[in-house]
Amino acid sequence: MTSTPLYLEDFSLGQRFSASTEEALSAAAIKEFAGTYDPQPFHLDEAAAARSFFGGLAASGWHTAALTMRLLVKALPIQGGVIGAGFDEFRWPRPTRPGDLLRIEVEILELKFSQSKPHQGFLRNRVTTYNQDDQAVLVMTGNLLVPRKPQ
Amino acid sequence: MTSTPLYLEDFSLGQRFSASTEEALSAAAIKEFAGTYDPQPFHLDEAAAARSFFGGLAASGWHTAALTMRLLVKALPIQGGVIGAGFDEFRWPRPTRPGDLLRIEVEILELKFSQSKPHQGFLRNRVTTYNQDDQAVLVMTGNLLVPRKPQ
Repeated sequence: MTSTPLYLEDFSLGQRFSASTEEALSAAAIKEFAGTYDPQPFHLDEAAAARSFFGGLAASGWHTAALTMRLLVKALPIQGGVIGAGFDEFRWPRPTRPGDLLRIEVEILELKFSQSKPHQGFLRNRVTTYNQDDQAVLVMTGNLLVPRKPQ
Repeated sequence: MTSTPLYLEDFSLGQRFSASTEEALSAAAIKEFAGTYDPQPFHLDEAAAARSFFGGLAASGWHTAALTMRLLVKALPIQGGVIGAGFDEFRWPRPTRPGDLLRIEVEILELKFSQSKPHQGFLRNRVTTYNQDDQAVLVMTGNLLVPRKPQ
């Protein structure tokens, strides 16, 4: 990780970035997020979750995604900010649980320069979020909008 | 919208479901979400946002996604809950702004039955989130895990 803001030209294929959370996800945080955005029993109540598909309390997948975004902002010092254009692969291989410590790995897959918009381009990348047992909990492949270096 | 829990067999191709938020998104809510999950100037401060790519305060795309999930839980009374498997199209055509009133439209695209897991299957669908001017702010195409009707 560097702290100098990066332009599209500063990235290279295969380059990797990473960041980690500093505190474990709590059951209280899982329930608070879910109460506001994903109010389903398996995100809100241990007993109901034990009887559900998840077999125990699980964070909303959107909570995992939001925590991943916090790590992306930490990992990628892009000039102008981390601005996502979208994804063509987005999956949650397994749920995030109370006590999980998350980390992300970002791999740079492609630099896409634009003829029509010479001041910006797209950075194709894959973000994988892992728990403390190195199990993937979120995989997102897509593009970030990144400015080009001023000429 | 129905309130009877639905199994995979209860859905049909082209069927649509919808739901709406009851209160407009506030600048305070945008900043609170961003402060926790997406701490970037264009989500936190009007003046900085005015000078950014967004040209004014914009919600985190993950905030839009989380609000969309709340509407999905309201729109889709699936037996066992709304459990996402992932997406192969995920994009934010435009940002969500203070004052926006969001609504979603869900279109059922395919019912996928499994030979190996006869008790469940996948419901392929497209979720589009619109603002009060009928502009799409989020489009997600993917699969939900849905139980089959007990025999």
